[in-house]
Amino acid sequence: MEYPSTLVENAVNELSRLPGVGKRSALRLALYLIKQPNQTTENLCNALLRMRTDIKYCKICYSLSDNDICSICSQEKRNHNQICVVENIRDILAIENTNQYKGVYHVLGGVISPIEGIGIGDLTISQLIDRVNQNPIEEIILALPTTMEGDTTGFYINKLLLAFDVKVSAIARGIAIGDNIEFADEITLGRSILNRMPFSQVHNSND
Amino acid sequence: MEYPSTLVENAVNELSRLPGVGKRSALRLALYLIKQPNQTTENLCNALLRMRTDIKYCKICYSLSDNDICSICSQEKRNHNQICVVENIRDILAIENTNQYKGVYHVLGGVISPIEGIGIGDLTISQLIDRVNQNPIEEIILALPTTMEGDTTGFYINKLLLAFDVKVSAIARGIAIGDNIEFADEITLGRSILNRMPFSQVHNSND
Repeated sequence: MEYPSTLVENAVNELSRLPGVGKRSALRLALYLIKQPNQTTENLCNALLRMRTDIKYCKICYSLSDNDICSICSQEKRNHNQICVVENIRDILAIENTNQYKGVYHVLGGVISPIEGIGIGDLTISQLIDRVNQNPIEEIILALPTTMEGDTTGFYINKLLLAFDVKVSAIARGIAIGDNIEFADEITLGRSILNRMPFSQVHNSND
Repeated sequence: MEYPSTLVENAVNELSRLPGVGKRSALRLALYLIKQPNQTTENLCNALLRMRTDIKYCKICYSLSDNDICSICSQEKRNHNQICVVENIRDILAIENTNQYKGVYHVLGGVISPIEGIGIGDLTISQLIDRVNQNPIEEIILALPTTMEGDTTGFYINKLLLAFDVKVSAIARGIAIGDNIEFADEITLGRSILNRMPFSQVHNSND
């Protein structure tokens, strides 16, 4: 495609490096910015540059953070003896959104995946063990993806934690709320029968 | 959604102002930039800021341009007496991509649309008439969208051009090449029968 302007062409090339942004959508974004006041582009770029330059990893939980300690780890009212282990920061946002969890987190930065070349050393597993070793942690909640890789990572962490006096739990798996039984996949449905819970617990756990 | 970092939150807010980018995709883009080297974000922002600051409109055809005259209008080998009238710069890119057109363009900047509040004065129609008035233009090709608004705009321009000794044509409408007759919509199919062309012309026009 030949562009009448190299300025637009360069912007489109840079935008289309972003995941999920093709040349067409990149052009749409570039033309949108041209139609908006200069300020829109300046605000966008300032926010991106400041984020990229100043972003840190929390020294406790390895979540993204503005400071050395993230806003969740620095909250006193949180239960610092309960750690929810997640794959990445998006999972923290999803869990925070539920308003059901008042403990702290630990971000692994991925899950063990030989296919993608992600090994134990690439994750913050040893840092998690250090946390358990140095603090009076009561419970570790594994909130990892329900995939082969997530399960492998969970098993490995659970094995390491056997050496400590800490309760290890995993988030409940079963039929999603609002789902029809007839449309549930058979593996989930089978597991939800095997792992059935007292009626009163199922219906009151979120109150 | 509560973010563990205001830097990420600000970046997500700015990114999600872009058309077609929701909070979720904005977060994905922000996390992608954090994983990449600083240079990726710097290149992106430099390209966007330079484009937004330095972009001009071509003084002849009103396309986006690096200079006062765009790269198409400044090409001598182009036929400057044949003007293709389009709604926006995306249409120029699409037509250039076909390698079938060697004339120049005129960008209206939209089409007449009372619903969206776009009137004649918002478009570069009077500038088009000036071009025809001041130059030995031989043909105006209307390549406007096949919508009510596009048709209205075409009729209006055609009426204004009656005062000049200039041929006014419109791009052919009909069954897309590669389409099955049975799946064509009835309006297009009906028009393509009414506007049938000599067999030799249909099959050789692109050679």
